[in-house]
Amino acid sequence: VIISVMQTVTLIPGDGIGPEISTAVMKIFEAAKAPIQWEEKNVTAIKGPGGKWIIPPEAKESMDKNKIGLKGPLKTPIAAGHPSMNLLLRKTFDLYANVRPCMSIEGYKTPYTDVDLVTIRENTEGEYSGIEHTIVDGVVQSIKLITEDASRKIAEYAFEYAKNNQRASVTAVHKANIMRMSDGLFLRKCRQVAENYRDIKFTEMYLDTVCLNMVQDPTQFDVLVMPNLYGDILSDLCAGLIGGLGVTPSGNIGANNVAIFESVHGTAPDIAGLDLANPTALLLSAVMMLRHMGMHDYSKKIETACFNTIRDKKVLTGDLGGKSKCSEFTAEICQRVRDMD
Amino acid sequence: VIISVMQTVTLIPGDGIGPEISTAVMKIFEAAKAPIQWEEKNVTAIKGPGGKWIIPPEAKESMDKNKIGLKGPLKTPIAAGHPSMNLLLRKTFDLYANVRPCMSIEGYKTPYTDVDLVTIRENTEGEYSGIEHTIVDGVVQSIKLITEDASRKIAEYAFEYAKNNQRASVTAVHKANIMRMSDGLFLRKCRQVAENYRDIKFTEMYLDTVCLNMVQDPTQFDVLVMPNLYGDILSDLCAGLIGGLGVTPSGNIGANNVAIFESVHGTAPDIAGLDLANPTALLLSAVMMLRHMGMHDYSKKIETACFNTIRDKKVLTGDLGGKSKCSEFTAEICQRVRDMD
Ligand SMILES: CC(C)[C@H](C(=O)O)[C@@H](O)C(=O)O
Ligand SMILES: CC(C)[C@H](C(=O)O)[C@@H](O)C(=O)O
Repeated sequence: VIISVMQTVTLIPGDGIGPEISTAVMKIFEAAKAPIQWEEKNVTAIKGPGGKWIIPPEAKESMDKNKIGLKGPLKTPIAAGHPSMNLLLRKTFDLYANVRPCMSIEGYKTPYTDVDLVTIRENTEGEYSGIEHTIVDGVVQSIKLITEDASRKIAEYAFEYAKNNQRASVTAVHKANIMRMSDGLFLRKCRQVAENYRDIKFTEMYLDTVCLNMVQDPTQFDVLVMPNLYGDILSDLCAGLIGGLGVTPSGNIGANNVAIFESVHGTAPDIAGLDLANPTALLLSAVMMLRHMGMHDYSKKIETACFNTIRDKKVLTGDLGGKSKCSEFTAEICQRVRDMD
Repeated sequence: VIISVMQTVTLIPGDGIGPEISTAVMKIFEAAKAPIQWEEKNVTAIKGPGGKWIIPPEAKESMDKNKIGLKGPLKTPIAAGHPSMNLLLRKTFDLYANVRPCMSIEGYKTPYTDVDLVTIRENTEGEYSGIEHTIVDGVVQSIKLITEDASRKIAEYAFEYAKNNQRASVTAVHKANIMRMSDGLFLRKCRQVAENYRDIKFTEMYLDTVCLNMVQDPTQFDVLVMPNLYGDILSDLCAGLIGGLGVTPSGNIGANNVAIFESVHGTAPDIAGLDLANPTALLLSAVMMLRHMGMHDYSKKIETACFNTIRDKKVLTGDLGGKSKCSEFTAEICQRVRDMD
């Protein structure tokens, strides 16, 4: 018998298919008797005092209190000046690390097998500084900002992650041959942090070389750590290797122990409300969340039920190659979770 | 009977395996009776007047006169302050467009088939501006520079290329959702140029989305045009899809009609001089060169002989899965070229 203390998690169902896949996750958690209580909140930005876009105070307070959030896809309203909800959440909670484990899923055919890697992306600075100028007419500059602090923090996160998840190596991805000072600083911090983790192999590789090697043989990679834009690219590329955003989990780790786990696919408005959506990405993100919270038994149980359902190919949603509804796929996973008791 | 006027091309054999694979190309050109005369030059940088690194004046003059060059791999000497030879050549001849056709090669197995796309990379500015500063201790900025001129030039090159090579569509690759001003300017120029090419479909796509879609189904792409760093990444990624740098041709198009075609793999010092190197990348670059010079019959003939040799799998170098020497692989292609007469 596993006894755990109930913990509260902020649930941000999101837009489009968000509510359906959130319901699916809640049902599966219930079947697994995972000791999680959900506090549902809406984060869509509002104009705060002074006219700045902020997430609603209620949602902010919930996250500040619970520390852990699970979030479905959000649509960014097209109101003038409305910020990307993704960027706003990263900023509001200083979510400095984006973590994406990419693992080949048995039974879901892609050109690759045995992929098992994790991309760790610096999430707050670099090419995303938002600082741009027109120098003279027709000449524009964008500033890429790299700081010692953020570089050390993300490097430390990557090595801690490797250590806690029994990973053998960390590769720093960079273009320090071109951006000698900025990527050079990032790389130097990685090297320094690596010295404190002698059991984990540290390597460095150019971004272009990583991309080339990645599509030729992704099994050579383990944990990869990199500045913001490179992570944006590589995390999506790697998701593609294992089947796309519909099956790839994601977690954002922030300051003060805040963490938000999320599916990174879109809101799929065309199928919203039709019980056709695939909840896998959000479910695997919730599994990552459980692992992050130290609830390894629950995470293993749910993950296994999900993977076995996909492997057996009997009850699958349309995007996974089946004909089942979201609710049927969910019921199948619930059944398998219960059968494990 | 094909009658063409002899044209002189500057040949830069390069280092390591460079001389062997250059010899292979020359032999095949001879077998095909291609009307090319080679002027061999060494480009390894020297210190010019004023202490700046320059390519030797002899090589520079040869290129200025011949306009067309073919270049093997170069090693960048490790002398302090020695610039990357690739960057120096781009700068010296204002090689503003890097063009890489990626086509699946029958008989050379990779996870993908039917890839047939071309990446066109802006080669002179962007993240490669070389401008970096330390703002305060531990805070570094790198400047990405995008100009209207360079953006229009590369967009025009891409559409002209598409038109001249019977390509149906051009996709601009960007992150204008993040770098609104710089990538925004690039994108605006692409849109403007697109208006002059109504027969060619124009689309825009985020870089991360391109990477994800690329590894899932590269056959959806045709001509892709993008700023410098994105091109560095995507061109290598796409090379990986079809078998790597050993089989991928590359061309650099410059101001004043100068163009340098090159293999982009390394110098492979471990096998240099052993008659084990694979000349395919340099040969296919030379084929691209012939096409660029309007010598379509010769280019077709040589390309076909090369592809058929690989398809038939009887005479292949080690990296292609065979046991033959570079000279044997070369002789086989020569024989096939002659048999076509
Ligand atoms: C939506 C966009 C701002 C975002 C990014 O570029 O970071 C997205 O691509 C992501 O990876 O979350
Ligand atoms: C060697 C290096 C300067 C170069 C680049 O980053 O452009 C290389 O990767 C290339 O693509 O030619």
